[in-house]
Amino acid sequence: MAVDAWKLSVKRTTEIFDSLSDESLYNEVSPGRNTGVYLLGHLVAITDRMMPLLGFGDAKYPELFEPFVSESEKKGEPTPLISDLKAYWSVVNERLDQKLDELRSEQFFDRHTSVSEEDFQKEPHRNRLNVIINRTNHMEYHRGQLIFLKDK
Amino acid sequence: MAVDAWKLSVKRTTEIFDSLSDESLYNEVSPGRNTGVYLLGHLVAITDRMMPLLGFGDAKYPELFEPFVSESEKKGEPTPLISDLKAYWSVVNERLDQKLDELRSEQFFDRHTSVSEEDFQKEPHRNRLNVIINRTNHMEYHRGQLIFLKDK
Repeated sequence: MAVDAWKLSVKRTTEIFDSLSDESLYNEVSPGRNTGVYLLGHLVAITDRMMPLLGFGDAKYPELFEPFVSESEKKGEPTPLISDLKAYWSVVNERLDQKLDELRSEQFFDRHTSVSEEDFQKEPHRNRLNVIINRTNHMEYHRGQLIFLKDK
Repeated sequence: MAVDAWKLSVKRTTEIFDSLSDESLYNEVSPGRNTGVYLLGHLVAITDRMMPLLGFGDAKYPELFEPFVSESEKKGEPTPLISDLKAYWSVVNERLDQKLDELRSEQFFDRHTSVSEEDFQKEPHRNRLNVIINRTNHMEYHRGQLIFLKDK
């Protein structure tokens, strides 16, 4: 169910990105707030980082983490092309989906890689499923903002 | 974990409501979009409706459903007092929390009340846990919008 909720959120977010022109994506979602292109890069970088976090392999675009997650948006600075970011968005979601589909039910309760074996004994909820639940909520939070770019 | 995510989302959303003056809550979250007070009423009504949906009892403020969920916002029309809506927000969350805390693990996998016994046989994921996951995502979606009222 948590994986279904994740996939539904990806689907709905992708529909927003697909419905927006490049020009709309350069707009701020609300005056003085992040642009659509920053949030696109942000969601690509967060989803990409889920690969190592879930023990699925390396991130594919680790260079996006610093400008789109560690740092807040610097307006007016050059960003990757929107067409590239949209392609990355497909790639990171396909890579993750493939791994999620391969996982057996009980493997969702294994620890994620940013918690030590020792801490995991004390906090068994710090598992893969918890990462998926939290990242879905994170995506919905930003989807509620991206929707404001429609009809702009 | 899904219940923890729900409670965290309620906590974070409550922090936003508590940090905003009544005046801020009357603002639109973004130009031409819903006001904070509408979203407050909307989240009260949705959370209240979870009681009958989860088989926990009656909604306490069913009269809020029509103006805050069925109908989109009519700007300029009178709304309940913000102090009342904030009090209702506490009440609906306390009522729900109490019931969630009483539930045994396996009872989260019982059907919710808007699916028939027959359909539930075919679609066993239409259970209480699924309602909680989806309502958490719904709240995060609107929390991403409410945050824009800060520093306004």
